[in-house]
Amino acid sequence: MKNYVTEFVGTFLFVFSIALAVAHAGALAPLVIGAALMCMVYMGGHISGGHYNPAVTLAVYLRGKLGLPTALGYAGSQFAGATLAAALAPIVTHQAFLVAPGTTDLTSALLVETLFTFALVLVVLDVATDDAVAKNSFYGLAIGFTIVVAAFAGGSVSGGAFNPAVGLGAAAAALDSAALGHAWLYLVGPLSGALLATLVYHLQHPSEAV
Amino acid sequence: MKNYVTEFVGTFLFVFSIALAVAHAGALAPLVIGAALMCMVYMGGHISGGHYNPAVTLAVYLRGKLGLPTALGYAGSQFAGATLAAALAPIVTHQAFLVAPGTTDLTSALLVETLFTFALVLVVLDVATDDAVAKNSFYGLAIGFTIVVAAFAGGSVSGGAFNPAVGLGAAAAALDSAALGHAWLYLVGPLSGALLATLVYHLQHPSEAV
Amino acid sequence: MKNYVTEFVGTFLFVFSIALAVAHAGALAPLVIGAALMCMVYMGGHISGGHYNPAVTLAVYLRGKLGLPTALGYAGSQFAGATLAAALAPIVTHQAFLVAPGTTDLTSALLVETLFTFALVLVVLDVATDDAVAKNSFYGLAIGFTIVVAAFAGGSVSGGAFNPAVGLGAAAAALDSAALGHAWLYLVGPLSGALLATLVYHLQHPSEAV
Amino acid sequence: MKNYVTEFVGTFLFVFSIALAVAHAGALAPLVIGAALMCMVYMGGHISGGHYNPAVTLAVYLRGKLGLPTALGYAGSQFAGATLAAALAPIVTHQAFLVAPGTTDLTSALLVETLFTFALVLVVLDVATDDAVAKNSFYGLAIGFTIVVAAFAGGSVSGGAFNPAVGLGAAAAALDSAALGHAWLYLVGPLSGALLATLVYHLQHPSEAV
Repeated sequence: MKNYVTEFVGTFLFVFSIALAVAHAGALAPLVIGAALMCMVYMGGHISGGHYNPAVTLAVYLRGKLGLPTALGYAGSQFAGATLAAALAPIVTHQAFLVAPGTTDLTSALLVETLFTFALVLVVLDVATDDAVAKNSFYGLAIGFTIVVAAFAGGSVSGGAFNPAVGLGAAAAALDSAALGHAWLYLVGPLSGALLATLVYHLQHPSEAV
Repeated sequence: MKNYVTEFVGTFLFVFSIALAVAHAGALAPLVIGAALMCMVYMGGHISGGHYNPAVTLAVYLRGKLGLPTALGYAGSQFAGATLAAALAPIVTHQAFLVAPGTTDLTSALLVETLFTFALVLVVLDVATDDAVAKNSFYGLAIGFTIVVAAFAGGSVSGGAFNPAVGLGAAAAALDSAALGHAWLYLVGPLSGALLATLVYHLQHPSEAV
Repeated sequence: MKNYVTEFVGTFLFVFSIALAVAHAGALAPLVIGAALMCMVYMGGHISGGHYNPAVTLAVYLRGKLGLPTALGYAGSQFAGATLAAALAPIVTHQAFLVAPGTTDLTSALLVETLFTFALVLVVLDVATDDAVAKNSFYGLAIGFTIVVAAFAGGSVSGGAFNPAVGLGAAAAALDSAALGHAWLYLVGPLSGALLATLVYHLQHPSEAV
Repeated sequence: MKNYVTEFVGTFLFVFSIALAVAHAGALAPLVIGAALMCMVYMGGHISGGHYNPAVTLAVYLRGKLGLPTALGYAGSQFAGATLAAALAPIVTHQAFLVAPGTTDLTSALLVETLFTFALVLVVLDVATDDAVAKNSFYGLAIGFTIVVAAFAGGSVSGGAFNPAVGLGAAAAALDSAALGHAWLYLVGPLSGALLATLVYHLQHPSEAV
């Protein structure tokens, strides 16, 4: 229960910060978004793992650190938190919160979602699940700033979700059919990136049992 | 005594930095404000806890980590430091330091003050009072950057106090009746956020005695 | 093998982030570039050392921490990762990724490449190879933000490689003869800086055997 | 010897970064300057203490952690490093590196230099000399970002030295009589701030022998 509360609250505050940053922080929004993830990872990492992202939960499940029912509970909590935040934010911003690619070149958008989610999940696996760096203090900084980098470098191309809960939660809250039409991008890209990261993690840790 | 000195000096330097950042740092002021809190938390966290905010002190008191007379002494030191800083800053900036909502939509302003103080206090409780992460080095980074996020995402809506000492200290120093008219916003929002954070912290730590 | 995978993947993601940051992050690109290095150092530092830079590998080799065949394998992995990233990035950015000095004053450009690579390698040696700070959590922050500083302060002068794999990988991917004409700058500057850093490190640690 | 080498090299790279950041980093120069200090503190903190500032050295001397001849050797190394950097930087920037107040209101300038050096030195004493936080990983972050805050908040008022070696090194390198005319500001302000910080540190640590 405490894990689901943490994933729900952390994802809610993360996505609420994204929506307000997009509306109010101008060119600095990517910094705000990644910093919000960093703070939430430090808030809840020692409780639930601080995923706030079904792509991260998928990779942690594949590493054998979470059972399937728990992983599904995590994903449900994340989608619920993201959808509530996306529904609540327009009260403050007076604009719908939508995540959408900034280009019609969907190959570019998919490449960006895939490669930066790959980076994010690989960073999570290496800094937060590898016993060689247990008890480090940098895990939130590394995870959050991977999203700072991803959002500055690729956000204008793909919309910058790197997270199915962010991409779909926004669409669900807006009941926006055009936004729902991008759902595949924010599922296929991040989940492919998570699979690739899991593969590379195993190449980096050959002696570790699967 | 050393705790009150630390809370007074830390809040003074934090609020003095806010006032000068607002006057001189342009669109980057939220980064400066959160960084100032981070530095002050690292300066005094191991002495007084580094609250610098009556909403944080309220939550730590409700967690049973401070007695009521000490908590009141903390709040008094914080208000004194904030008021002195707000009175001194105009010597340098040649402008009054006022904290005020940037909108007439006070529902939005109250939502922003409440939800981001909720985030701030939840981060403080989880990174600085939970034995599971004792002796970590990230507490100041997580706390300070929650204010970076809050100020970028919501500062233009609510005025960005997230702290009764900041909101009321500025008003007190300016003896400004319009500013004093916003006092309720910077009391009700942050204190509600602190109560909500205390509740969520207990849901996250069900085995911990209250 | 796991070390070469880590150096290849880390350099690939670092250079891919550089190319997209240059195209999309405007004046904030140096922050994104240094943050990308920070994240990759935290991702792979405990596996391969997280060099992603032949100048760093040279210095670590000279400190006796890597054998020559391994050092050459590191450099090969780094050049391969950088070249692949530089070749792939234009699919997203629709522009060639080239690293070139921003001035015809090549003395300035060489001074910038040399002195900031000196700073970078000295930071790496002191924060990541000195037993006095073993198990610290700041090594990625210090290394990444040295590149934030270098790229903001000197990037517009020298092109801001501070890394032969970055400078030459971009040129190789573009098969651009003008870019290849700058190859000497990104070899001589960074390698000279690495030698100078190795010398200063020995002055700082006189009791340490070479 | 290793301490003087570290203070000389660290101050050189810090001031060289300042000079290039002022010339090339625009409104983000304060971030670059503070980040440069952070990186240099992490580079040399475990060797010499990473002062790079005679005001810091004065306070550490007053705390009894350094003898007088050593403290003077530190200050000499710092002035030498700063002067060399200020002399070398114009080769790259094609402009003199001068530190000067941005206002004719010298009360404001002195207040800014004094109060932010007070903040800096108090942070140094509390994060880097207090046994209660021995072996922490945040000391460079806290120290460097205090200068980020100070330079954004007060740099446009006082010139933003907070360090006699920065203020006087620039003047010495330029042999600029107007700049030398500000020398008192960068001596009186930072040294007063250091004395105030030493006093507050003793109030915070009443049981500690002087």
